[in-house]
Amino acid sequence: MSNQIEEFNAYRSKMNDKLLADNNKIVKRIFNLDTNAFAAGALDVKTKELLGLVASAVLRCDDCVKYHLESSYNEGVSKVEVMETLSIATLVGGTIVIPHLRRAYEYWEELENQQG
Amino acid sequence: MSNQIEEFNAYRSKMNDKLLADNNKIVKRIFNLDTNAFAAGALDVKTKELLGLVASAVLRCDDCVKYHLESSYNEGVSKVEVMETLSIATLVGGTIVIPHLRRAYEYWEELENQQG
Amino acid sequence: MSNQIEEFNAYRSKMNDKLLADNNKIVKRIFNLDTNAFAAGALDVKTKELLGLVASAVLRCDDCVKYHLESSYNEGVSKVEVMETLSIATLVGGTIVIPHLRRAYEYWEELENQQG
Amino acid sequence: MSNQIEEFNAYRSKMNDKLLADNNKIVKRIFNLDTNAFAAGALDVKTKELLGLVASAVLRCDDCVKYHLESSYNEGVSKVEVMETLSIATLVGGTIVIPHLRRAYEYWEELENQQG
Amino acid sequence: MSNQIEEFNAYRSKMNDKLLADNNKIVKRIFNLDTNAFAAGALDVKTKELLGLVASAVLRCDDCVKYHLESSYNEGVSKVEVMETLSIATLVGGTIVIPHLRRAYEYWEELENQQG
Amino acid sequence: MSNQIEEFNAYRSKMNDKLLADNNKIVKRIFNLDTNAFAAGALDVKTKELLGLVASAVLRCDDCVKYHLESSYNEGVSKVEVMETLSIATLVGGTIVIPHLRRAYEYWEELENQQG
Repeated sequence: MSNQIEEFNAYRSKMNDKLLADNNKIVKRIFNLDTNAFAAGALDVKTKELLGLVASAVLRCDDCVKYHLESSYNEGVSKVEVMETLSIATLVGGTIVIPHLRRAYEYWEELENQQG
Repeated sequence: MSNQIEEFNAYRSKMNDKLLADNNKIVKRIFNLDTNAFAAGALDVKTKELLGLVASAVLRCDDCVKYHLESSYNEGVSKVEVMETLSIATLVGGTIVIPHLRRAYEYWEELENQQG
Repeated sequence: MSNQIEEFNAYRSKMNDKLLADNNKIVKRIFNLDTNAFAAGALDVKTKELLGLVASAVLRCDDCVKYHLESSYNEGVSKVEVMETLSIATLVGGTIVIPHLRRAYEYWEELENQQG
Repeated sequence: MSNQIEEFNAYRSKMNDKLLADNNKIVKRIFNLDTNAFAAGALDVKTKELLGLVASAVLRCDDCVKYHLESSYNEGVSKVEVMETLSIATLVGGTIVIPHLRRAYEYWEELENQQG
Repeated sequence: MSNQIEEFNAYRSKMNDKLLADNNKIVKRIFNLDTNAFAAGALDVKTKELLGLVASAVLRCDDCVKYHLESSYNEGVSKVEVMETLSIATLVGGTIVIPHLRRAYEYWEELENQQG
Repeated sequence: MSNQIEEFNAYRSKMNDKLLADNNKIVKRIFNLDTNAFAAGALDVKTKELLGLVASAVLRCDDCVKYHLESSYNEGVSKVEVMETLSIATLVGGTIVIPHLRRAYEYWEELENQQG
């Protein structure tokens, strides 16, 4: 894995473990809901990941964008589909989304370049 | 059409006409982009409308939600699909999205109840 | 009850009932979490209501502000305590909070003036 | 004055008076700062009003937009200048600003149509 | 002090000194208000710090979160109280708050581990 | 050029080139609009740059702030004018803008210290 992907996932895992071990019920249930909300339902997983991606992008949350880029990548979403999703985010959310678009594009490139 | 749908569309049309007639190039091009971004591409129109809906919901823009609810309705999106989309918005955007969820639900009901 | 309080609560109840009857699991669990998060724990209910109030105010969610104003009122929070909470919201969130402060103040007055 | 302008100003004045009479020091000082920040300095009042307008528009605060539209109008700002300012807001803040742009345009028209 | 705490405070102090030396009246008064708003009043300092913390968390301002975590720590707030406060922030502000929750949790651990 | 300015511009250029080469029409047109919106019109370039700066600051987009600080600097905007603009941002957007104000101030200093 590339450095950026590895670093992001390592820190995310380490801190999520600590948060879940901390035993705050509300936090634990929100984490649990997060897993449920993106599971297949009337909408398939791929569509839901793109919904998570566009929501993360307009809210300008880089870590959330990275997470959904990786899940989207694993679901077989193509680069063109990711770019259409992010272009909607940039139009709806405005040019302040552009710095996040730059970082998202770089992260996607790393996902494509990594050795599984 | 129900009152709420009719009122929203009438005001929206009236003011959009004025804005476009005003001849500010940037505003005109943004309106134009808006049409383009939601046209079929690698992603189909229905998926793009759901992307527009979730983005509007997490950014808590009632008018944008109404607009994408109506387009989604016209694309044949089902109520369950709308609710899965809005539930992701509520999870990602937090309980402050709930008041908008209430109004979105009401608007969707009116879309279903209206006589075409 | 004053008109504004009654109207807010009637619409809120009606739509919450519909949302819960709709049977979207994520939405139902988020509603359930909302009840849990504001229950007494290490922090008492009054403090938690003020936390909910300040969060709602800086995020500029009028309906959320109304809801927490009413719960705070029922918990015996004084007007001075509400104003200190809202003044922190206005300082942290900026002068764009002021229109919400005006509406919050009016709602609090109605809470004080209503006949139980 | 038109209905909308009169209503906005009447409610704003009434509630501001109550807020200032309430004697919360932080709120009073923030109101006072607001007056100071838009006074002439290295930048003239007109430029500062446009800064207040664009900030209000990207933060999607209708009441703040109305306030700065009226001050801008009184400073002799032209409609073209207002539209250039709001077009920057729409580009930077995204299409979610458009509903606020519609209402801002309507309010500006009322300002132009009112009998001084 | 740990690296992270020391770095944050050093940069914050250095830049605050420069900002105050720059002599912009509005900035100076806002800094001054910030001190006043969190002083004991009808609400005690501890409660006000938690209000500042939850406001900072839902607005997703890492530096503001760090500042209020440190003040809360110095006021004797317990980890359980911090977590209840941050869990309300995550519920109200949504899962986009989670990356900030991870960083807040890490910072709190450093506060607990540092040698006074 | 100082390290910070150089780094920011190098990364920005590299990623913008990639984004434009990617051939997503919406993204390309938004980039194009960005150039147009800040060109001289009824308002001069300097005023528009300050509008872009205040909008970026209240939306708390560090990269956007840096970009408009540099353009403002190149347009001959003075430090006092920048500080008046940023003080309005801090008042309107609240104390959560302060961390961005610290970074903006540092970046401006680097702009002043660099050898053209």
